[in-house]
Amino acid sequence: MPVYQAPVADTLFVLNDILGWERHGNLPGFSDATPDVVEAILGEAGRFAADVFLPLNQSGDLEGCHRAADGSVTTPKGFREAYAQFREAGWGGLSADPEFGGQGLPHTLAAAVNEFLSSSNMAFAMYPGLTRGAIAAIEHHGAPEQKALYLPKMVDGIWTGTMNLTEPHCGTDLGLLRTRAVPNADGSFAISGQKIFISAGEHDLSENIVHLVLARIEGAPEGVKGISLFIVPKFLPEEDGRPGARNGVSCGSLEEKMGIHGNATCVMNYDGATGWLVGEAHKGLRAMFTMMNEARLGVGVQGLAISEIAYQNAVAYARDRLQGRALAGSKHGEKAADPIIVHPDVRRMLMTIRAVNEAGRALILWTALRGDLAHRAEDPKVREAADDWMGLLTPVIKGVLTDKGFENAVMAQQVYGGHGYVREWGMEQFVRDARIAQIYEGANGIQALDLVGRKLALNGGRAIQAFFKEVGAFCEEHRSNEAMAPFTKSLKKGLNDLQSATMWLMTNAMQKPDNAGAASTDYMHLFGLVALGYMWGRMAHAAQEKLAAGAGDDTSFLENKLVTARFFMDRLMPETAAHLARISSGADSMMALDADAF
Amino acid sequence: MPVYQAPVADTLFVLNDILGWERHGNLPGFSDATPDVVEAILGEAGRFAADVFLPLNQSGDLEGCHRAADGSVTTPKGFREAYAQFREAGWGGLSADPEFGGQGLPHTLAAAVNEFLSSSNMAFAMYPGLTRGAIAAIEHHGAPEQKALYLPKMVDGIWTGTMNLTEPHCGTDLGLLRTRAVPNADGSFAISGQKIFISAGEHDLSENIVHLVLARIEGAPEGVKGISLFIVPKFLPEEDGRPGARNGVSCGSLEEKMGIHGNATCVMNYDGATGWLVGEAHKGLRAMFTMMNEARLGVGVQGLAISEIAYQNAVAYARDRLQGRALAGSKHGEKAADPIIVHPDVRRMLMTIRAVNEAGRALILWTALRGDLAHRAEDPKVREAADDWMGLLTPVIKGVLTDKGFENAVMAQQVYGGHGYVREWGMEQFVRDARIAQIYEGANGIQALDLVGRKLALNGGRAIQAFFKEVGAFCEEHRSNEAMAPFTKSLKKGLNDLQSATMWLMTNAMQKPDNAGAASTDYMHLFGLVALGYMWGRMAHAAQEKLAAGAGDDTSFLENKLVTARFFMDRLMPETAAHLARISSGADSMMALDADAF
Repeated sequence: MPVYQAPVADTLFVLNDILGWERHGNLPGFSDATPDVVEAILGEAGRFAADVFLPLNQSGDLEGCHRAADGSVTTPKGFREAYAQFREAGWGGLSADPEFGGQGLPHTLAAAVNEFLSSSNMAFAMYPGLTRGAIAAIEHHGAPEQKALYLPKMVDGIWTGTMNLTEPHCGTDLGLLRTRAVPNADGSFAISGQKIFISAGEHDLSENIVHLVLARIEGAPEGVKGISLFIVPKFLPEEDGRPGARNGVSCGSLEEKMGIHGNATCVMNYDGATGWLVGEAHKGLRAMFTMMNEARLGVGVQGLAISEIAYQNAVAYARDRLQGRALAGSKHGEKAADPIIVHPDVRRMLMTIRAVNEAGRALILWTALRGDLAHRAEDPKVREAADDWMGLLTPVIKGVLTDKGFENAVMAQQVYGGHGYVREWGMEQFVRDARIAQIYEGANGIQALDLVGRKLALNGGRAIQAFFKEVGAFCEEHRSNEAMAPFTKSLKKGLNDLQSATMWLMTNAMQKPDNAGAASTDYMHLFGLVALGYMWGRMAHAAQEKLAAGAGDDTSFLENKLVTARFFMDRLMPETAAHLARISSGADSMMALDADAF
Repeated sequence: MPVYQAPVADTLFVLNDILGWERHGNLPGFSDATPDVVEAILGEAGRFAADVFLPLNQSGDLEGCHRAADGSVTTPKGFREAYAQFREAGWGGLSADPEFGGQGLPHTLAAAVNEFLSSSNMAFAMYPGLTRGAIAAIEHHGAPEQKALYLPKMVDGIWTGTMNLTEPHCGTDLGLLRTRAVPNADGSFAISGQKIFISAGEHDLSENIVHLVLARIEGAPEGVKGISLFIVPKFLPEEDGRPGARNGVSCGSLEEKMGIHGNATCVMNYDGATGWLVGEAHKGLRAMFTMMNEARLGVGVQGLAISEIAYQNAVAYARDRLQGRALAGSKHGEKAADPIIVHPDVRRMLMTIRAVNEAGRALILWTALRGDLAHRAEDPKVREAADDWMGLLTPVIKGVLTDKGFENAVMAQQVYGGHGYVREWGMEQFVRDARIAQIYEGANGIQALDLVGRKLALNGGRAIQAFFKEVGAFCEEHRSNEAMAPFTKSLKKGLNDLQSATMWLMTNAMQKPDNAGAASTDYMHLFGLVALGYMWGRMAHAAQEKLAAGAGDDTSFLENKLVTARFFMDRLMPETAAHLARISSGADSMMALDADAF
């Protein structure tokens, strides 16, 4: 069975030495999260993940979920008990509003905890993950009485949540959706239609399931401007808030999937189910986006999470498996062969994963902190800048960290040779599970379009200009520091490529939008490399400063950071030039074939 | 259920217009394979693949193989009947020696047919595929009476073959193997030990299974120099050649795998089983390499094959699925939305796969032809040069086309969005099946080491110098041809990068072998891009010549070739520079961490 140890020390390094956690102690929520409290919470979360979630990961994959003839769904053996422990320990409400029973801690901390839980059991972590998204939508767009009715239950976890967007003919293009909402006399609506791919749509973990459903009110405009968001609970709440009569929504079938078998992915049938409008009529998409942005960052975390556990296991195997001898002469003459970690090509795979994971973790926490600042900072300028960063980086984190997460899981599997292909070792599950993160919550091609087609131009390019300025200033600041030069030189080169690509888009995409579409995925990955490289620059600098000050027990941890930073610059940053070359080639050869010619 | 139509026209274009098929008509075997015979055979093979193999692909994956308590194994429903049809039609003996009942046609043709069969059902095509490898080993290294006894049955297909290398503690490093061979009085050996990951190790398709087994004769030297190859049939042949008594070899269990569920991957237990030495004692590795080289090209074909069927289905879906509108304005205003094939990012994925597939097919057939020349050409210089090419390109084809095959299957799956993740559409099976090709027959890291550590230096670098000369001469020849310039310019740039990387290796890897290991995978992929780019150069040139001569009905086929060639140069060739940059960074940051620091 795969092993897992939560990367607590690495997370603390990011929080304390990169984010300067203590500097934000004056913000609401942060005052309770002193460094020692944070350390205790992370340690506890890591143990919980390893002790409670991890043992159910492989068995949950093998068993999957079951739907009975009556439409009820049971989760794999052990999930109910583990979920009860999860609720009891209060993990679901870590960063939720204290008004609704949450602990009000920073979202940044919740993001770190979410990584640990997703590493140890991604399919399981999705149940509370979707609930968090539903909570966010109700919190931001619900009426006070909706908040009062639903949020305490959902924050507690006794009720869970879902997002219902997709229909058989309608995924990315929500304008096509057909689910209907007919007003009832009492102000509620009767919802009818079919939704597919609904994660956690039906299960046995909670006493009620709160579906957030996109539907079209009778007579609403066509397209996305006629879509509204509804709360449709599985059981209609009684006056006292207890679950009452069964609502007209049910699970028609479970999807047979490639992975995340522990999560029940449902076809949900709405047959005149009672629903209540959330926010304004026909403005459902805006509310859904609140939920989706939350979810997209969470999916980026999943990419990192699978990559991390896959890495840890590949390392353990590479240390243990004896095969061949080191090229430069045997390292372990006393053994029948050397452990494969001596081989450069095995190192290449391990170092690549490591270099992405550590920077990915920093980027997620850095971005999550900006998310906290966007809501909690006093200065409106700070809030605006933080919100800009969040908007700009959300598609990058989702798209790039899930693409890399999958590639890394595949690489970690490769370290095992044939043993990676058989189920027993658990590596092929990581590959199957990681794959969905590239697809759901907006396929990665959609993230790239969101970045290039929307986020770049917002507010006259304010966010991207601020990003350029921030990264450029960092390079400039350390230009004359010889120890930093290997890092800032590569980073500056990457930044230049990104700026050139941005210029190219400004010049070529206006009159020919296909040039933007043709560039989008490469642009997103180019952006991702620069953002990750920026994190490596910051981490290298922090490591150097601490080493110079005398780091004691942390010395090798910090020296390893410098090695990994160097590896990132040597081996990953060169890709920025290839991205720029592809982007600059434009859409011509991509679009020239007739659709029938394929 | 996935669709499939064998790419017969594309294969004929390569054979006739790139390889100049008719020019080789004087070679043994080729004289019977006139262009019209070739066309008829390919057409028939394509129909057979689509009609007989394809319908069992998804069902075979779902059902898998079953092992009974007595160790017998049954293949999925329909496999027995389909295999009988396969035998009856004589597909297994297409290029086998007529002395043993084969049709003696060129291996090049067999490679093309193998692509079609592997596309339509890779797990199934492995049964005859492994038999072909075993035939090759016996043909090259077996004694005359072994050939007479086994080959006619194996060519017919009534007996099948396997390769038994791997043991639980021993994969890449065959020197560690423990399976023992004790001489019997009659000249045979008693073989004992356990082999794992044995594809087609036990099944119900054939009346006998001929295991080729690596084992160590009692008292043999340690390491790879003490390994011998044995024939160990499941049933001991009687005097008259009919299968007689059961031998002491049995299937201990079936591996639970990520994919290729239709193929029985067995743990094989040898318990004093009777075996006969093939070739010389302690020279088993050489014989096994004959088999493995055959198999490695076959695995490269699998990479292409899965990529091709995945592409065809992604194209069908992209034409059919309505979602969103073209960026430059709706193309199908009469429909609720445009088919997603209008979107540049969908095109990017489809064109990438296409550009790799068409060049990959050309490279495989080009290399297979050199394989035929190596055996059949009269001029020893021609044979030598052809053999050099084969040796050099085998690891590239295996490593690069299976890495690309997997990436392409993933990309094709991505075109489907969420529908790609559910089993129903069959796309996730292609991903799971394609994955093994990167691992077996020498994991791709081993292919890269074979290329960099062995093939480059052989005969003073004769093969690589000939490759540089051939590709360089092609660029030079068309340098002043304006229509060819876009292609030769990119190709020349790629070739320069490859030559620089080779120089770098020569300068830096001698005194520090880790620099070779650290460069190997990047070098293999750099090589692959240049080899594929060279194929695109040749295809573009052939297309231009034919268009200039008036191509009639073929006009759009040829124009599409030019577009795809352009796309390859725009979008795939830029990667060569990134590979070179990574290679040139050396092994330092890759190897610096202590093994305990990971």
